Parts: sequence; structure tokens; C-alpha cells
Amino acid sequence: MRGVVMHAPGDVRVEDREDPRIIEPTDAIIRVEAACVCGSDLWPYRGADKVHDRPMGHEYVGVVEETGDQVRNVGIGDFVVGSFFASDNTCEICRAGYQSRCVHAEPVGAIGTQAQYARIPLADGTLVATPAMPDADLVPGLLAASDVLGTGWFGAVAAEAGPGRTVAVVGDGAVGLLAVLAARRLGAERITIFSRHADRQKLAREFGATDVITARGDEGVAEIKELTGGLGAHSVIEAVGTQESMMQAIRSTRPGGHVGYLGVSHDVRLPGDELFFSAVHLHGGPAPVRRFLPDLIDLVWTRQIDPGKVFDLTLPLEEAAEAYKAMDERRAIKPLLHP
Amino acid sequence: MRGVVMHAPGDVRVEDREDPRIIEPTDAIIRVEAACVCGSDLWPYRGADKVHDRPMGHEYVGVVEETGDQVRNVGIGDFVVGSFFASDNTCEICRAGYQSRCVHAEPVGAIGTQAQYARIPLADGTLVATPAMPDADLVPGLLAASDVLGTGWFGAVAAEAGPGRTVAVVGDGAVGLLAVLAARRLGAERITIFSRHADRQKLAREFGATDVITARGDEGVAEIKELTGGLGAHSVIEAVGTQESMMQAIRSTRPGGHVGYLGVSHDVRLPGDELFFSAVHLHGGPAPVRRFLPDLIDLVWTRQIDPGKVFDLTLPLEEAAEAYKAMDERRAIKPLLHP
Repeated sequence: MRGVVMHAPGDVRVEDREDPRIIEPTDAIIRVEAACVCGSDLWPYRGADKVHDRPMGHEYVGVVEETGDQVRNVGIGDFVVGSFFASDNTCEICRAGYQSRCVHAEPVGAIGTQAQYARIPLADGTLVATPAMPDADLVPGLLAASDVLGTGWFGAVAAEAGPGRTVAVVGDGAVGLLAVLAARRLGAERITIFSRHADRQKLAREFGATDVITARGDEGVAEIKELTGGLGAHSVIEAVGTQESMMQAIRSTRPGGHVGYLGVSHDVRLPGDELFFSAVHLHGGPAPVRRFLPDLIDLVWTRQIDPGKVFDLTLPLEEAAEAYKAMDERRAIKPLLHP
Repeated sequence: MRGVVMHAPGDVRVEDREDPRIIEPTDAIIRVEAACVCGSDLWPYRGADKVHDRPMGHEYVGVVEETGDQVRNVGIGDFVVGSFFASDNTCEICRAGYQSRCVHAEPVGAIGTQAQYARIPLADGTLVATPAMPDADLVPGLLAASDVLGTGWFGAVAAEAGPGRTVAVVGDGAVGLLAVLAARRLGAERITIFSRHADRQKLAREFGATDVITARGDEGVAEIKELTGGLGAHSVIEAVGTQESMMQAIRSTRPGGHVGYLGVSHDVRLPGDELFFSAVHLHGGPAPVRRFLPDLIDLVWTRQIDPGKVFDLTLPLEEAAEAYKAMDERRAIKPLLHP
């Protein structure tokens, strides 16, 4: 089959890869209908993470082609959505809603779903079937549920966004934008996004943002405080993963407020004294997308939300290198790849 | 009046200080009935914080001697308990339960309650009167409510200790010990304390601890995991404030679990990547003791709890230097001072 391999930072190629096959009786093989490039794929692309001949991709929707002997919940021909950690969905950690830290968790990123086919471990726990084959226009939204929507949703939940609470979002990538959508669906009326890009500001407003702050760092913090009676927002969602973005998120939050952080942390060292006196709640990490997946699929399926709007570039899989480049250069918010 | 002044690390003296007087119409002057030495007083004592001729003390119970014109909630002759941040208890942050970060907060530590008298700012918001003059044996418990009990309680609440949740406490000082008591009162059945000191282990068991781990660091983490099915505790309370104690707390917590941290952070830098993948909730800071004070006073007053047991050394104020020394050398868990 054809699949994306990152040989080194900046060096993305589509190549012949070995066809996946069932290894464990809990596996399923899917034919990938759509995959995409994640903000986290840019860390190795930009050299911030080590990378050497790595198959890429961990977001996916597709059709089940084959199942292991023990797979019961999905069958051949089902259209399925999964998330970036395979999980059994039965262990104590999964039942508490933290499937991304399942005791048997396996990173789908190690398998690489920017490809024609993919082996999905723990298929019963990981995959959720749609009610039927989706109309083509629903596919991007379902694909968004696989990661960026589920991640943004987790951030909004972790930040306890809801009615009567002011929300701020640090980061205007797909996750940040969909965190806006999530906060709105969860009942927040006042949602501010930090963004300097007109196209992203526009989409943020479509998703429910009421205010935009273009300033960053301490200047941005001063502006969100001004918008919130000097106190800071109740709920702040961090969707970048740098020292600057984390500190901006913490400083934008009022004492007793909640920070939901989603960006994969890179070279972040949180100063204990400042965190202590901030008196904020801090929660985040790899989003347990599986917790939200049934509800998110339903919201997309019934066309109550359209998170697929974050895909502003659609390319055939063979042009994956251009997809990475466009995202890296911020010419695209998020590229969708059709195998 | 007589009062404690720390001139330099290790140099604690009882001296003549100016009698406090009403400055703002919201002030009250109290005659201090009992004060004590806090674990946080040891930071400057040991040279970890700068100190130069500083009046000491921020825990106190006493009798109101004089009130400013605008004070309504407490009157002359009332026996009162306050906490270490004066707060108006009416602002939006106070109403959300974060009185230690009140928009008008004033640190009582800057005033110094290890003294015969003290000026308490924002008396209406800060002080809570007991139903009557307390019996002498209740005074230590009421004094504990002023900080160590309220702080331990906040830690247990921040860590979401409760029925069906396993709890671990890092730190066997007075705050850690009272966090055990709080977790027990909040309904936790399984409570582990990390402690190497027989006297503190004994008190921890009296307060409700079911298990003791003497190992620290990664070895201690391995033991708490063994006690919790390999997963880690649901609720971990950190009551030290060092890099080691914070990492021990985070690593002792299961994914999705809650860390409540109370130790005033010193040279702590939390690694973002480890925090991210831990997927824990982190909440703490200067405890909003005022939130809990009415309930805690009631529990002490009705003799349902006896947090005063943490005071294992009682000295006259004039012997404050010995109190600091005993606590520093861990000969005393917590010394009470009678002016």
C-alpha cells in the first residue's frame, strides 16, 4: 500500500509500505477513507522532535476490511471513527474516562494512518461505527472527531467551560478553533480567542467566539483581564504547547479558575511559585477522545455541528508533502488527505 | 507589646514591638490568645527565603479588643479565628471560594501574629467568632483551624478525596497530618501517608490513615502503585513544596486523578512533558481557609475532630526561639505559643 513516511525533519514522502495484517485477535484492518496532518506532526517536521523513517498519521476514518477473531463491536463494512490512542475501553482508567491512558493503550501514531490501510489495535474499545455509510460531506466532520474536535472538546471540559463562565482560548490552530466550538456547545456565552490571523478569526467567530485578542504574552493577558473585570477568564484552553502559551494561559485565568491544556508540551517548565500563587486548576494531557466520540459522532451526523470546516485544504494522499508544507507555513489550518 | 522578630535566618528573638492600632475603619485589634510556628516560617529560618528584621506569625486566635468604625460582624470581647490572608469575603473571587486571592487580600504574615496583639485588616471578612468563649482545651483545635487544618482540608478538597477514592499524602508535617484527617472526614476509606517518623505515623493513624509508606521518591511511588492495583492513588495531597515532593505526588496519582498541592513551592519547575502525559488534575496554592472556617470551627467546637493534637509542644511566647529550633530539628511537629 501507499503511505506517508517522514524520513527526517522536513522530509515527507509517500512510499510503498507493507500492507497491514491482523496481529492480535483484537485488531481490525481498516481502509482509510480520510486522514489528515496534525499540529503535533509539525513538531518532528520542524525538528523539535527526533524523527527517522517514521510512518505518519494518527487521525482516521475508514471502512473495516478485516477483523481479528475476538472483535465483536464492529464488523466488516462498518464505517468507523477511532482516536489516536487505541484503548480497551474496559479497564478502570478507561471507565473513569481516560482512555488515552488506558492500561493497554497503544499509540496509533506508531502505526501511521496517513496511508491506504491501517491496523487498529483493540478495535472493540477503540473504534466507533457510524449509523450508516456517511454522505461525503460528513466525512471531514467525522475525521475531525478523531482528534482535533475530541481534543478541543476535552480542553473545554477540562477548563470547565459552561454557562456563566468566561472562556479564553490560546492557540488558533484546528484544536483551538474547535475548543471554541466545544465551549459554545457546552454553554459558554463569552468566548475570546487569541489570534492574529484573519481567516482563523473568521472561523473562530463562526464557531462561537465573541471576542478576538491579537496581542500575545503579557500584553494579551492584560487584554483578557480588561475584558473580565480585571480578574481573568474562568476557563482558559491552551492549544499550543510552548512555555509562552502555557504561561499565557495560566496568567489569563482568574484565581480558582480552570486551565485545560492540550498542546503537546515542548521544553515547558512550569515555575512552581507562580503556579502556586495563581491558584488555578490545571488539567490536560493527551485527550481521551474516545470518551466523547459517540456524542461527537452524533452531533456531526445530525448536522448540529460542522467541525470539518477546519479542513481548508484537501489533497490526495500522494501530495502529503505539500500538505505538511502548507500547514507548516500556515497557509492551511489543517489539510485533509484522501488515500 | 512583645512580639517575635526574625532578624536573619536562624535568628529569632522576642522583642518590644509597637502596639498595633486601627489604621483602616475595617480593621480590628485582637489580643492574641494563641499563635504558632508554621512550616512556611521555616523557609526563611533555614535561609531558603530572604528575611531581615521581619515580624513573624500568621496563625492566630484571640479576643477582639477594638474595632474600626465599619466593622459589623465581630464585636469587642468576641473570641475569633482568622486565616493568614485577610479578605473582604464579598468580592467575586471570595464568593467563588478563593478568599486567599481576594482582590483586596492582605497577608497577615506581614503583620506578625506571634505577638501579644495584632491588627487584623478587613475584620468583617476575615474573622469568624466562636459561639462563646472556648474552653481552654478547645483553643489548640481552633488555632489549627486558622491555617494547618484549613490548609490540609483545602488539599483534600482540591485532591477530591472522598468515598471510594484512594488517598495518598506526601508530607507528614502538621498540614499533611491534618490532610489525613480531612480526607477521612470527607469519606475516604483508604488513606496512605508517606512518613518516616514513628510519632507522626502514630498521629496519622489516629487521624485516619490506614497505610504508611516509609520509602520516598520513585521507590515510594512504586509502593503506592502496588497498593492501588498498579494505577496510583485517585487523590494525592502534597504538603511539602519541593521538586521531589511535587514529582512524587504527581507520579503517585493515577491518570485522571487529582493532586492537591499545599507546600509553598521552592525552586519547583514542573516538566511540561511529564505533567502532560500524567493526565492528572493539579490544583493548589495558598489555601482559602476562610471558605472552610465556619464548618471547621463547628467541627472543633462540637468536639467531632481534635486537630489540636498536632501541637506537641506548648511554650510561652518569650520562648519562641526554642519553638523554631524544635520544629526545625523535627523535635516538634508544631509548637504553640502563648503570649
